[in-house]
Amino acid sequence: MTPTNTAFSVNGRTYKPAQRPIVTICLDGSADEYLDAAMARGLMPNLQRMSIRGFRGMARGALPSFTNVNNASIVTGVSPAVHGISGNYFYDPESGQEVMMNSAKYLRANTLLAAAAQAGRKVAVVTAKDKLREILSHGLTGIGFSAEKAADAQLATHGIADVEKLMGEPAPAIYSANASLFVLRAGVALVRAGLADLLYLSFTDYMQHKYEPEAPEVLDFYAAIDLELGHLLELGAVIGATADHGMNAKQKLNGEPNVLYLETMLDEKFGGGFRVILPITDPYVLHHGALGSFASVYLPPTAKLMEVSSWLMKLPGVTEVYDRETAAEKLEIPADRIGDLVVMSGRDVVVGRTTAHHDLSALDGGLRSHGGRYEEMVPFVISEPLNAGYQAKARGDLRNFDLFDFTINGTQL
Amino acid sequence: MTPTNTAFSVNGRTYKPAQRPIVTICLDGSADEYLDAAMARGLMPNLQRMSIRGFRGMARGALPSFTNVNNASIVTGVSPAVHGISGNYFYDPESGQEVMMNSAKYLRANTLLAAAAQAGRKVAVVTAKDKLREILSHGLTGIGFSAEKAADAQLATHGIADVEKLMGEPAPAIYSANASLFVLRAGVALVRAGLADLLYLSFTDYMQHKYEPEAPEVLDFYAAIDLELGHLLELGAVIGATADHGMNAKQKLNGEPNVLYLETMLDEKFGGGFRVILPITDPYVLHHGALGSFASVYLPPTAKLMEVSSWLMKLPGVTEVYDRETAAEKLEIPADRIGDLVVMSGRDVVVGRTTAHHDLSALDGGLRSHGGRYEEMVPFVISEPLNAGYQAKARGDLRNFDLFDFTINGTQL
Repeated sequence: MTPTNTAFSVNGRTYKPAQRPIVTICLDGSADEYLDAAMARGLMPNLQRMSIRGFRGMARGALPSFTNVNNASIVTGVSPAVHGISGNYFYDPESGQEVMMNSAKYLRANTLLAAAAQAGRKVAVVTAKDKLREILSHGLTGIGFSAEKAADAQLATHGIADVEKLMGEPAPAIYSANASLFVLRAGVALVRAGLADLLYLSFTDYMQHKYEPEAPEVLDFYAAIDLELGHLLELGAVIGATADHGMNAKQKLNGEPNVLYLETMLDEKFGGGFRVILPITDPYVLHHGALGSFASVYLPPTAKLMEVSSWLMKLPGVTEVYDRETAAEKLEIPADRIGDLVVMSGRDVVVGRTTAHHDLSALDGGLRSHGGRYEEMVPFVISEPLNAGYQAKARGDLRNFDLFDFTINGTQL
Repeated sequence: MTPTNTAFSVNGRTYKPAQRPIVTICLDGSADEYLDAAMARGLMPNLQRMSIRGFRGMARGALPSFTNVNNASIVTGVSPAVHGISGNYFYDPESGQEVMMNSAKYLRANTLLAAAAQAGRKVAVVTAKDKLREILSHGLTGIGFSAEKAADAQLATHGIADVEKLMGEPAPAIYSANASLFVLRAGVALVRAGLADLLYLSFTDYMQHKYEPEAPEVLDFYAAIDLELGHLLELGAVIGATADHGMNAKQKLNGEPNVLYLETMLDEKFGGGFRVILPITDPYVLHHGALGSFASVYLPPTAKLMEVSSWLMKLPGVTEVYDRETAAEKLEIPADRIGDLVVMSGRDVVVGRTTAHHDLSALDGGLRSHGGRYEEMVPFVISEPLNAGYQAKARGDLRNFDLFDFTINGTQL
């Protein structure tokens, strides 16, 4: 059945989908170097063709450069200041609790996936990590499941059952290349079976946290991704792909993680009572040990904001420090969900809380991570030629959360 | 004659050159997207082979992301805080004059080119723009000339005469692809003739200011670069290439330059007497009309630093504002050669002085420029495999001014 081309509007934008399968992909943690390394070796002929026939450029992601933040931005088409998701983890001032930010109750904008479904598209969301499913499927009448818990998907709750049967393979381990490849193969299977015609496929960055771009394991991974891109192209899909954030090594020359334990340092310097929130924190500790390049700092009543701010900015490895208001304005983060100060660290530096908060032995190899300014820029690829209006738009400050806009509106003549 | 492998030390580093021609290249304005676009189309087979056999990654340039600053960093191996070159143009507090920063009298560090020559290497510097020649050839016993004024080179002053005869072609127009290609072909000719065995070849970014990465003109340009890389590889050279800065479109959707006229705005808001220095300013106005993403602001005595700083930071399009001390520390700029405040602007925004200071009609097409944080990251390619120590170093916060270190020391087993 031909997909509907009924337009839908959400968060101030109107989308006019083509009557073809539309597949958007969030290549979690895919710094551009990963594509470069695989493409130079001829391992991504389909992505190569897409980038010549269509568009390949760099897009600016949302800050902090974390997974939940950017996934929420991509499916809503707006910045975190609007959609409200400020991290994987935050301090909820209402409850006084530090909590995971996986619940859709924290989402302040509707998703364009829900709107597309309402307009009659067969929408499917497949995510590697189950933690993202609730936010991405919020309000969605359609299919939504994770690779991690594919076996648990039920028609009533996930819009689909028997996923493993459809796929002809069991759900993958979450700490594997397969966790992402399963997502992409699920997308192919759903399009092929006519079960979905507007898809959002969101990977996990386990491989990028673990391997640098030239590692054979990660080259194999990108080659396997390319194979599935080929299948999607054969099925007539328009494909748009970007990443939620980049990835950099965050270690010293001797291989040790390069960490500033901010809460310890602040407590020692200014006499206790500081709360440092690391919004990278999530249940998947093997990836990064909750160490990233962004922190939110809550000050005790006794501390002087300017004094603490200046002191933080003088720390080697710290690159930017902003008060709440400036961070909200310049970094587009919801002011009520960050601390009194936010701190970003350098390309090879992460911020931690106290040594007790981080189990470095859980780190699977060296530390590669993200969260700051140096993981803000991500690749952005569209399989079809852009029309004139979107060619001009692409030359500006292209954002990764314009992915649906470009994939849907940018490819229509 | 086999090149000498005598070690030399400069600015705290020791270099132990291989007994092969060593050719380093500054691909002026080569944002990584230019390499991506050309490589995806199969136009750079030699660079592709280099990146597989050797190393390709991203390096962090020096700020402000301008030509003189980064060329000085590359040939000294240190940051602007050490070598003293803070822009193409600055306000000299000693003379009270605004002047071009092309003179070697502003250089506070010796170049490794001069040191290599002293150790017995046959050194040659070839630059597209003559403005760079003096700084790059400072203290050098060897060859140093520009494509722009190749016809003027004399043995006594440039270490070589009859350049056009050696090359078999006339000096190119400065506003051309040939201005850079001539530099590279000169490098090939010098190595082939046995006149040089350690070279620094520095391009001009005219093409990147003028064309976006997918433009046929710029694709042809990179294909022509690759051809010469092939010749250098055939001559047995070890090649290291990086860029001084990236390049982004700085215009509105309607094609107009996206400019904040800071001096006008500050004078209007705070009552006059502000001096805004744009360190991108140079004699080559067709490139960018002196519009970049970095400004240095000198305050009148009446102005309050914190107040002006906060106001600037609130301006849409401004991304970072630092006082002199913080800029010196965090951006590694010489404190005595910047203003009371420095300002950086967004990926698609430039800062200007007053409308009278900028002849927009001189802009050759749209405005593409650089100078800020979003042009800080640049490609970095070494033709030979890195040894274990430099593989680890490459995984850290790799800098573009480590180019000689990697090309010379990183490729020795």
